[in-house]
Amino acid sequence: IVTTPPNARAQTPVKADVEVELKGEYQLVSRAWKKEPTPVRIGDREVAEGKIFIIAGPCAVENRDQIMAAAKAVKDIGAHALRGGAFKPRTSPYTFQGLGEEGLKLLAEARESTGLPVVTEVMDSQDIPLVAKYADALQIGARNMQNFSLLKKLGKAGRPVLLKRGFGNTIDEWMAAAEYVALHGNGDVIFVERGIRTFDRTLRFTLDVGAIAYMKQATHLPVIGDPSHPAGDRKFVIPLALAILAAGADGLIVEVHPDPSKALSDAAQQLTFEQFRELVEKARALGRALGKTV
Amino acid sequence: IVTTPPNARAQTPVKADVEVELKGEYQLVSRAWKKEPTPVRIGDREVAEGKIFIIAGPCAVENRDQIMAAAKAVKDIGAHALRGGAFKPRTSPYTFQGLGEEGLKLLAEARESTGLPVVTEVMDSQDIPLVAKYADALQIGARNMQNFSLLKKLGKAGRPVLLKRGFGNTIDEWMAAAEYVALHGNGDVIFVERGIRTFDRTLRFTLDVGAIAYMKQATHLPVIGDPSHPAGDRKFVIPLALAILAAGADGLIVEVHPDPSKALSDAAQQLTFEQFRELVEKARALGRALGKTV
Amino acid sequence: IVTTPPNARAQTPVKADVEVELKGEYQLVSRAWKKEPTPVRIGDREVAEGKIFIIAGPCAVENRDQIMAAAKAVKDIGAHALRGGAFKPRTSPYTFQGLGEEGLKLLAEARESTGLPVVTEVMDSQDIPLVAKYADALQIGARNMQNFSLLKKLGKAGRPVLLKRGFGNTIDEWMAAAEYVALHGNGDVIFVERGIRTFDRTLRFTLDVGAIAYMKQATHLPVIGDPSHPAGDRKFVIPLALAILAAGADGLIVEVHPDPSKALSDAAQQLTFEQFRELVEKARALGRALGKTV
Amino acid sequence: IVTTPPNARAQTPVKADVEVELKGEYQLVSRAWKKEPTPVRIGDREVAEGKIFIIAGPCAVENRDQIMAAAKAVKDIGAHALRGGAFKPRTSPYTFQGLGEEGLKLLAEARESTGLPVVTEVMDSQDIPLVAKYADALQIGARNMQNFSLLKKLGKAGRPVLLKRGFGNTIDEWMAAAEYVALHGNGDVIFVERGIRTFDRTLRFTLDVGAIAYMKQATHLPVIGDPSHPAGDRKFVIPLALAILAAGADGLIVEVHPDPSKALSDAAQQLTFEQFRELVEKARALGRALGKTV
Repeated sequence: IVTTPPNARAQTPVKADVEVELKGEYQLVSRAWKKEPTPVRIGDREVAEGKIFIIAGPCAVENRDQIMAAAKAVKDIGAHALRGGAFKPRTSPYTFQGLGEEGLKLLAEARESTGLPVVTEVMDSQDIPLVAKYADALQIGARNMQNFSLLKKLGKAGRPVLLKRGFGNTIDEWMAAAEYVALHGNGDVIFVERGIRTFDRTLRFTLDVGAIAYMKQATHLPVIGDPSHPAGDRKFVIPLALAILAAGADGLIVEVHPDPSKALSDAAQQLTFEQFRELVEKARALGRALGKTV
Repeated sequence: IVTTPPNARAQTPVKADVEVELKGEYQLVSRAWKKEPTPVRIGDREVAEGKIFIIAGPCAVENRDQIMAAAKAVKDIGAHALRGGAFKPRTSPYTFQGLGEEGLKLLAEARESTGLPVVTEVMDSQDIPLVAKYADALQIGARNMQNFSLLKKLGKAGRPVLLKRGFGNTIDEWMAAAEYVALHGNGDVIFVERGIRTFDRTLRFTLDVGAIAYMKQATHLPVIGDPSHPAGDRKFVIPLALAILAAGADGLIVEVHPDPSKALSDAAQQLTFEQFRELVEKARALGRALGKTV
Repeated sequence: IVTTPPNARAQTPVKADVEVELKGEYQLVSRAWKKEPTPVRIGDREVAEGKIFIIAGPCAVENRDQIMAAAKAVKDIGAHALRGGAFKPRTSPYTFQGLGEEGLKLLAEARESTGLPVVTEVMDSQDIPLVAKYADALQIGARNMQNFSLLKKLGKAGRPVLLKRGFGNTIDEWMAAAEYVALHGNGDVIFVERGIRTFDRTLRFTLDVGAIAYMKQATHLPVIGDPSHPAGDRKFVIPLALAILAAGADGLIVEVHPDPSKALSDAAQQLTFEQFRELVEKARALGRALGKTV
Repeated sequence: IVTTPPNARAQTPVKADVEVELKGEYQLVSRAWKKEPTPVRIGDREVAEGKIFIIAGPCAVENRDQIMAAAKAVKDIGAHALRGGAFKPRTSPYTFQGLGEEGLKLLAEARESTGLPVVTEVMDSQDIPLVAKYADALQIGARNMQNFSLLKKLGKAGRPVLLKRGFGNTIDEWMAAAEYVALHGNGDVIFVERGIRTFDRTLRFTLDVGAIAYMKQATHLPVIGDPSHPAGDRKFVIPLALAILAAGADGLIVEVHPDPSKALSDAAQQLTFEQFRELVEKARALGRALGKTV
């Protein structure tokens, strides 16, 4: 399918199979186009407006004991899905890059054991079939939000996509990135706000709750937030998580580790089980106060 | 009083009357120096940790009818103090600059009528005595956060100070600005987060809830948030206000106007009375859920 | 004079003595309004398009020996005016705040001795007459760019104004700030780009040469650049100074100190005399290559 | 090769074949590691310190006439290499995405005709062999700067890499991204500064000449600049190009089109042939003034 907006049509040298009349740079993901909220399924669960969906687990899958312990604990405390990275995008080539397929297998094993659906990152378009084989949802990291080649191929992935906002990207670019996935065949996109780069580096990133408030009116798709990366330090994760929900988000994705001080990545920002329990309790109380089904 | 940190003492050519041993660029406002939270009084009310203090009113005082109507309504709905600008910092010299002393008199009249203490901005160090004569608390706008001459003179103002964060200023600079006020004699400072400038201009400013979460641990003084300026549009004010509170703030300062569409400034972002009522109700529900006294 | 744009006229509660039809938020400083470049005089010299005007001297006036040595050296090497701060805006109240009037007197003495006109900062509207008594041009620091009360009073200062861009301010806000000065009676404004705050903090600020290129087309007033503050380290000052000129600026304001390692402020970024000589030589070569009168 | 820094070694669960003692997050690209500048060859030409290397051509290859005309003109005027996109990263899926392999063939034809080596972008790791078959150098776009999977595979591409800085990325991240390419086998990396995202959106991006000044001291590899993307409008391209060179860059990559008003992408910012001629003349004059071989 090649779809061209009216103003591009005259000059474009490629032939269009289907022509769709567009009003802007994106349409399929816009609430102007579809008024009703669209729930997105992850495994046998549903991320949907009016509820709070919590995805929790370690930054990276490190070994069987770690992921099994994490999966069991977050399940018992109240998570709806398990997260954990097998392919890790790391700033430096000298740091831990993830276990790869071995990590994916451990995640699948944790799903077997707990019943939690699994969310994990895919970094390379060539790995989509491999990751899709093990995972219930595919996460696209902030640094790949405008990897358009990857986005196009996600259209055929057969799995819902968690699209993290790039830390240097505007809200419009985020919407247009989701449009790539949707236009190429996959409308199951969940937006994940995770903080942007600003001049203030006191915390790791600046969580943009305004983007959440805006997106809840601009898109019919679910919007969730990641409090761990903007916090950068576990002592700020709970207030940021509550701010995400208060701004209207449909859920959270949060890093939890059996022993954060020994984590191979993001050691400072992962929650202990005890802290995760406190977060879930507060999130439920806040959700009830704001009229959500908890 | 001239106080110098150890490393400046050797070279400084000015004589110090008092010498204080410092550990950083600020101390008096830091929670490392004073562990217990410090409540700050505005008139006969108190801004304090564990409660939600709501300051509401129009962007600018425009005339008697407008400010009296606004004061009565926000009082009835649940505000604890009245805001309204008499001296207005405006980007362009061709826009409404405020009523000046006439506006201050109208604010005092509104206080008489409603019992609400009054918060208003002072822009020039020469106007401090005038504004302090009418107002219960002095607001320092974002653009004056590093007007050090003004900050020093606020040390002798005899009124509590609401110190808005500059939209281009780091958290450390904000703390140091408050230190100017405190060091010159006035420890009654309330920090106001109101959004920063970032590359994303979808909303008017990027509300930095991370700064609120951080400041609640870094200072013993109250921290409140302004959802109106980052929103820029009233349809985003309520979710931002709730995010401010969920991140841990001790209160809100919010723009409310009897007829926002006719406002002489910030027309798009002022709430109607009806919207303000919805905000107060949700804020109370959220406060109760998080264990605050409402 | 009270001037109101058309769309504000209907609602504004203040009476206008003169009514001017405006097309935007500023006009007097715009090249759309006045096509020919406007030179601005500082003492007996002129900052003008097609030339390179160099203002040099220490960050702060520290004592007689220091300022006299600096003035003599920068004069001999090729500066057209002397800079030096007597009132210093400092982030922390515990650092050196400047010598005040004593510093102004030393600057005047340096002018007597070298013939260089003097540029120095004014921070408080109450100090304008005092500073204007000693200085040939008044500098407004980045943190005061939107101190509108100060800007208005500069309209009657009787001295040209160097208006530094606020590090959190847009180009439009910079133009509108200059409009305040011009509208209140003083059209002699020189714009100074000195770097903005961005997410990258490798250097102290991000020098915005795009702003220089833009401003040279947008205003008829002179535009110069400050390479010292964005560099933050003297080893980057020369390339930034050359970039400023190559982008089209009409001059430079640069920090030079007899012994930078002993400076009471900005020690890392002040040039030695030797480095300043290298800068002037390269600036002249570059100016000639680009067709400027050097 | 798996190389781990000392502090990661203890915990890492993967076996290292070779162990290298590291001092930071990157080393191979650092000037602390290799003092002498490293020239990088593109076809039969060399990008090297002390010279000015100019890469020019259209944003995208659109058809044979357009690319042949552009190649001939930029060659005659003085370019050292031809640029042109066959795979185009576009914010919206509804805009022209490039001609793909057909575009690569046209580029190769233009090289045959003019002798200019060809630089073009690769967006997907799967396309590396295809693009490398036709191109003399592979460009990595800003949005892929942290596409680590792509970076690793470039280590085996057998072609020099132009690594554009991500508009949301710090200088350290840029260096670390190049380290990925170098560590995986390809040390021929050229850094391309092309502007970053900041709060000021007057121009399209904020050109960071401070990054150029810094990088020339921090890396031994060539650093060039792209004035077209930060300008966003051709009337600002020449001053930005000169600022890039004055800040110390080793060359330019600039968009030039036979008829910019008809371009399928970036129409506003592409130079006409006449403007490109003016740019080359000024660049040469400036280069000579600064002691470069032109």
